[in-house]
Amino acid sequence: MSVSETVEVTGHLIDSGILSRILDDIREYEGDYVIDRFDVGHDAADTSRATITVSADDDPALQRLLMRLQTRGVNQVDPGEAMLALADMDGVFPDGFYSTTNLETKVRIGSTWIDVGNPEMDCGLVVEYSGSGEVVRVMTLPMSDVRIGMHVVCGASGVRVKSPVLEKAPGSFGFMESEVSSEKPQGVLVRSVADGMREAKAAGKKVLWVGGPGVVHTGAAPAMVAMVDAGFVDVLFAGNALATHDIESALYGTSLGVDLALGRGVEHGHEHHIRALNTIRKVGSIAAAVEQGVLTGGIMHAMVTHEKAFVLVGSVRDDGPLPDVYTDVIEGQRAMRAQLQDVGYCLMVATMLHSVATGNILPASIPLVCVDINPATVTKLADRGSSHARGIVTDVGLFLEQLAGELVPDYRRA
Amino acid sequence: MSVSETVEVTGHLIDSGILSRILDDIREYEGDYVIDRFDVGHDAADTSRATITVSADDDPALQRLLMRLQTRGVNQVDPGEAMLALADMDGVFPDGFYSTTNLETKVRIGSTWIDVGNPEMDCGLVVEYSGSGEVVRVMTLPMSDVRIGMHVVCGASGVRVKSPVLEKAPGSFGFMESEVSSEKPQGVLVRSVADGMREAKAAGKKVLWVGGPGVVHTGAAPAMVAMVDAGFVDVLFAGNALATHDIESALYGTSLGVDLALGRGVEHGHEHHIRALNTIRKVGSIAAAVEQGVLTGGIMHAMVTHEKAFVLVGSVRDDGPLPDVYTDVIEGQRAMRAQLQDVGYCLMVATMLHSVATGNILPASIPLVCVDINPATVTKLADRGSSHARGIVTDVGLFLEQLAGELVPDYRRA
Amino acid sequence: MSVSETVEVTGHLIDSGILSRILDDIREYEGDYVIDRFDVGHDAADTSRATITVSADDDPALQRLLMRLQTRGVNQVDPGEAMLALADMDGVFPDGFYSTTNLETKVRIGSTWIDVGNPEMDCGLVVEYSGSGEVVRVMTLPMSDVRIGMHVVCGASGVRVKSPVLEKAPGSFGFMESEVSSEKPQGVLVRSVADGMREAKAAGKKVLWVGGPGVVHTGAAPAMVAMVDAGFVDVLFAGNALATHDIESALYGTSLGVDLALGRGVEHGHEHHIRALNTIRKVGSIAAAVEQGVLTGGIMHAMVTHEKAFVLVGSVRDDGPLPDVYTDVIEGQRAMRAQLQDVGYCLMVATMLHSVATGNILPASIPLVCVDINPATVTKLADRGSSHARGIVTDVGLFLEQLAGELVPDYRRA
Amino acid sequence: MSVSETVEVTGHLIDSGILSRILDDIREYEGDYVIDRFDVGHDAADTSRATITVSADDDPALQRLLMRLQTRGVNQVDPGEAMLALADMDGVFPDGFYSTTNLETKVRIGSTWIDVGNPEMDCGLVVEYSGSGEVVRVMTLPMSDVRIGMHVVCGASGVRVKSPVLEKAPGSFGFMESEVSSEKPQGVLVRSVADGMREAKAAGKKVLWVGGPGVVHTGAAPAMVAMVDAGFVDVLFAGNALATHDIESALYGTSLGVDLALGRGVEHGHEHHIRALNTIRKVGSIAAAVEQGVLTGGIMHAMVTHEKAFVLVGSVRDDGPLPDVYTDVIEGQRAMRAQLQDVGYCLMVATMLHSVATGNILPASIPLVCVDINPATVTKLADRGSSHARGIVTDVGLFLEQLAGELVPDYRRA
Repeated sequence: MSVSETVEVTGHLIDSGILSRILDDIREYEGDYVIDRFDVGHDAADTSRATITVSADDDPALQRLLMRLQTRGVNQVDPGEAMLALADMDGVFPDGFYSTTNLETKVRIGSTWIDVGNPEMDCGLVVEYSGSGEVVRVMTLPMSDVRIGMHVVCGASGVRVKSPVLEKAPGSFGFMESEVSSEKPQGVLVRSVADGMREAKAAGKKVLWVGGPGVVHTGAAPAMVAMVDAGFVDVLFAGNALATHDIESALYGTSLGVDLALGRGVEHGHEHHIRALNTIRKVGSIAAAVEQGVLTGGIMHAMVTHEKAFVLVGSVRDDGPLPDVYTDVIEGQRAMRAQLQDVGYCLMVATMLHSVATGNILPASIPLVCVDINPATVTKLADRGSSHARGIVTDVGLFLEQLAGELVPDYRRA
Repeated sequence: MSVSETVEVTGHLIDSGILSRILDDIREYEGDYVIDRFDVGHDAADTSRATITVSADDDPALQRLLMRLQTRGVNQVDPGEAMLALADMDGVFPDGFYSTTNLETKVRIGSTWIDVGNPEMDCGLVVEYSGSGEVVRVMTLPMSDVRIGMHVVCGASGVRVKSPVLEKAPGSFGFMESEVSSEKPQGVLVRSVADGMREAKAAGKKVLWVGGPGVVHTGAAPAMVAMVDAGFVDVLFAGNALATHDIESALYGTSLGVDLALGRGVEHGHEHHIRALNTIRKVGSIAAAVEQGVLTGGIMHAMVTHEKAFVLVGSVRDDGPLPDVYTDVIEGQRAMRAQLQDVGYCLMVATMLHSVATGNILPASIPLVCVDINPATVTKLADRGSSHARGIVTDVGLFLEQLAGELVPDYRRA
Repeated sequence: MSVSETVEVTGHLIDSGILSRILDDIREYEGDYVIDRFDVGHDAADTSRATITVSADDDPALQRLLMRLQTRGVNQVDPGEAMLALADMDGVFPDGFYSTTNLETKVRIGSTWIDVGNPEMDCGLVVEYSGSGEVVRVMTLPMSDVRIGMHVVCGASGVRVKSPVLEKAPGSFGFMESEVSSEKPQGVLVRSVADGMREAKAAGKKVLWVGGPGVVHTGAAPAMVAMVDAGFVDVLFAGNALATHDIESALYGTSLGVDLALGRGVEHGHEHHIRALNTIRKVGSIAAAVEQGVLTGGIMHAMVTHEKAFVLVGSVRDDGPLPDVYTDVIEGQRAMRAQLQDVGYCLMVATMLHSVATGNILPASIPLVCVDINPATVTKLADRGSSHARGIVTDVGLFLEQLAGELVPDYRRA
Repeated sequence: MSVSETVEVTGHLIDSGILSRILDDIREYEGDYVIDRFDVGHDAADTSRATITVSADDDPALQRLLMRLQTRGVNQVDPGEAMLALADMDGVFPDGFYSTTNLETKVRIGSTWIDVGNPEMDCGLVVEYSGSGEVVRVMTLPMSDVRIGMHVVCGASGVRVKSPVLEKAPGSFGFMESEVSSEKPQGVLVRSVADGMREAKAAGKKVLWVGGPGVVHTGAAPAMVAMVDAGFVDVLFAGNALATHDIESALYGTSLGVDLALGRGVEHGHEHHIRALNTIRKVGSIAAAVEQGVLTGGIMHAMVTHEKAFVLVGSVRDDGPLPDVYTDVIEGQRAMRAQLQDVGYCLMVATMLHSVATGNILPASIPLVCVDINPATVTKLADRGSSHARGIVTDVGLFLEQLAGELVPDYRRA
């Protein structure tokens, strides 16, 4: 026996390819569909609206499919009320928990639509009640933070999402998969990123950078320092490697300078990085190293000097690590989440691991650009939840050099 | 003023390219050298021996250079005695600590050469004394495990290393950088890996696998299960992703099947993996899921059934994670080290992160093969400490399929 | 002032993404559109049909846009009659010539729809008249073959195309961009190629191979020889390199064996290939070398022995070249076209240059699979005219090994 | 029975890795060796000198090995006299012909050492006599240009080569395989290329560019035009694609703008390029199009305006082609050779095919830099004959932008 539900979606359904993906999802989840109504945008600028009845073999399968479709901005026509269940174990959601998207989300409880404050993918929705039984707020919560007795939304009922409007205005460089264009692509791309950062700052928002050690190896550290100095780096997410190589370079004057683009990485045996780690561990923290005059240059020095936030999260391949590094990755994720408030622009440079990690926790509403010389990194990120990510495949060193040239008036390469 | 030390190195210095790298190192460390004597192997089979006087601006620089050269198997002619210093902080080595190689190592204390039991790169050497002041043993210790009062070797004096003999016998497929050959490269490579595993097993040693989720995505899970069943997977190092995708596939019958080779990765929005994680977290562990009949197939099921060890270490991009995953990466490294005993062969498949992490802690004496479709991964590993790594750039799915065909007599693709 | 035309298109417009691309094209050509009517397929299996009025600034721009849209299978609702113009120069089309697609094409002349015999992209359409003024046939003609006085179709009027029906049946592995799946991707892919070849042979069609030197370097020559022997290689398109390396290997027993996957290519200095070239030039042709017993093994030997056709076309980087190589690339293209008759399946392996060249002249109706370890090659081909190409990113050596195992019952790796 | 010969080689044998490669070659050719004498450079700046007796199974094998070793700069201690044989067929060398290197070469005939004027790899050496039987000159000749009755050098006797001295000076960025470094790699690399071009111009030499269509797609055409205007592009080698896309862009204002770095190439269906081809074919040549005011901008326009030479050689995938394109690749090679006179610097950008073709005919003495975002292209070229090639893996668009900034004082991005 089959169960079904009617859903609707609005937007540039055809030219953005979203409708095609929706139908792919239904097939992949072994559901079926009938398109009940499709009001197509007559002119290029119009949005379209589709009403689709989707069906599946049983209700759990249908609910999973409905949740999946919400990642595409598809909502139930008659969403009903959210169904809640109590968590009966720490770190475990109740069966059939609603799995979140990174879109703007509302939940209907007692006929009232409540905004979810912190959209994040692959979490659950937890409803907090006051002592008097009133709903205080609804928030996303990662699986590992669930505690017994929490009220968790189950199934897709009573949840609505809203996709950001995709602009395809002339002048914008658009989305990687559909178009990358203009006569001077690279110049336009650099300027577009610079504009995005300036707009975020003008709106009182923060600029978040996510970086890998390639920033240092390609010689872009001075460019990045100039952008920190100029106020375009408010928060930095990275791993042990970026900070260590930056510090090693500042302490020993060594220039690893092995282009990651050659796929050669930095030779591990180069034991200077071990001494750099030991030196910082000895003084206790990067900030202490700056204060005591041990560390006098580089990206981390600039971040500390300007009192900018950074979150360094460790990985299994780390040496040391630096004392500032979160060795517990779940705690590291929490520390990253705590810095997302007021972020209005995100630039990811030369790191797969931390870019994906950041993409996981970032709301879809925040503009996101990923720069890497390896197309796989760019594609992988764009394939994941945030279809709003823009990818730029280019040389990280030259890109940051040019970006500094755009953002910092008197920046000159030495 | 310049200080100097005379060193020596023996081996296939020219045709292996080692001597060239030694001189590169000296230049990179801003040292200088004079080749005092060079006894060249006359015939192709002979080893050569070089005696070189290296100099540097001051003693700390010289000591760092000498430590660096030991990663190439270069020893001081007159090594002297090990110098020891006391650690005066937890997690920090004394200044000038000896930074280890992954080669077989001996330390001279009180005129006696003592073997270091567990060679590992980028660690310190700690000397343990009995209550009566006798040396009990000398061991490598990672920086984070140092404790106040430990006796740590400083400088390069009193330390000798021994490089494995590189065989360039006909028939062996040799080393990635110098030669990859024979009329049927891929067939030969598969057979060579199979032979290596069989030899390790015949010698009573364990076979260690390090794997990424690509093993599952390329459809190689059944081949790997067959090899687990046949006893060729004694230990598995992986992350949350391999285990989760394997379990998701077993629980939901979904086949992610997105070839990583296309650089497309697995779409994150696919929420089945979140439910798989929740399911395993609910029962408490992968082993419990097998016992309770929740998990009835796949790689992890096979590992549990055959009571094989696995160490799953988390990363910052993890969802969940599975209850078996070490969320603290330093603890994860310790758990990995604890499984290295008796490992006689290591195969790394489709993972950069865990391959580099394993390469960091593995002695150079253990044969190591890295298989990936991405040349950068293979090169990166080979560039790191263990120059003994052999790299195979190929399709992971077809490779494991063929390897199972070699190792498991009645293995047939379904 | 703007001119417009009403067009229509039928098919799986949404889930195949075609409609999205059509609208992209209109934008890119700076046209505008109104969707007059859109009958959406209600069920997943139904096709949809759209009627769209497209407009442009002037008639030449409109005609160019209409021609462009035909590459997507879009036809004018009221196609009218073909307009003809006389070529007034050799090798040059009249202005406004119709630029062809590789789809099944009909041309209306004097109210009669005439089939175009040999669909090929980026050609013109030439109408041949009998002495009595009757239309004998309409054929595609490449620009360089135009001769003064030929009757050439201009503008998009009177031309209709028909897209192949894209099947998205369960079991088929589908199209690279939308889905690559099933539990054992690589095994399924190999079998799918084998099935395609068997079906073509069963239908009395030929199997066309396009190969690069990687076939030899990855050790797959014996596998390919087995498939030639078994009748699965009817025609081979290649360059000087595949044939030379194959012959060098047969003559000198040298195994270049440098895996292209490592991006290392074959060292040029290896002068055996020069001697191999000289040897074959001396006897006059590859066939003569086989007859005279000079060449006794390898792929080219097998092709000659089984009297199979091969077309070798040179490139600017060639040494020699072999006497069989077309040094004039335009003549080479003609020789390739002459072999397309009755081709029912095409496999492209390890070559960008010859794969693109073949994709240029192949009708869209012929199944086409491109195998390469480099995703860029696979993507590039799929991006070009034939959206029907299927791409497989895998190791060429292992793939051909497995394909031989599927196609040749007693094939065993030596 | 084994035959042997004593050879010698001088240079930075160890730190450049040359000696290691020499021994690899001997093994690969199944020869054997004894190192008779090895005078090692004591200090880092000294050169070394090795005397080696190499042996092989028979004389032809030995001669082939000796010719092979000459590609490494290895000469016979007692070179003897050149042996000559008459060509008895057009296009075919006598058996045992000497296969050339791209090094500076001398041939001894009648006790006199004669310089070979035009070193080129994989050719033969032809001796020209005057009517009175005097040697007029010795020249390299490609296989296809041999004519009956020519005097061709056979075997390795009487031939000496001289390797360029590899400088490893501080400040130079060195050779891809050994070191790429300095604190700002990309900035240093750009400046190094600019310096190389300026030095060549200052010495009255020409700068040769070899380019692929990526120059246009990445938006670098204006930067390249600026460099043509400033006199830094004396000769351009390219294919049909670069010129066609450049001209299409100039004629139609279309910006293909699809970044090759994404591996997406330019969609073939885009029929503008076909019209651009037809337009130029109609006027007869690119120069005619410039004269008649049909073509008013872009790279080719700049080349014509400044009366700079360009050689366009076709390939099997070409549409059209442009009337200026050599459709016969052997004639194209000849046209390229004819432009090598006085070339003092060569920059290869974004093309594998034409870069390899140019590398084949370029003497080793000409500085050569290859820039591509794809490491495989860079490595492939460096692996081939000219070990003097320097590779830069970076974004072509940004690189040329920065290079124009270095070379053209008032160059500003629009």
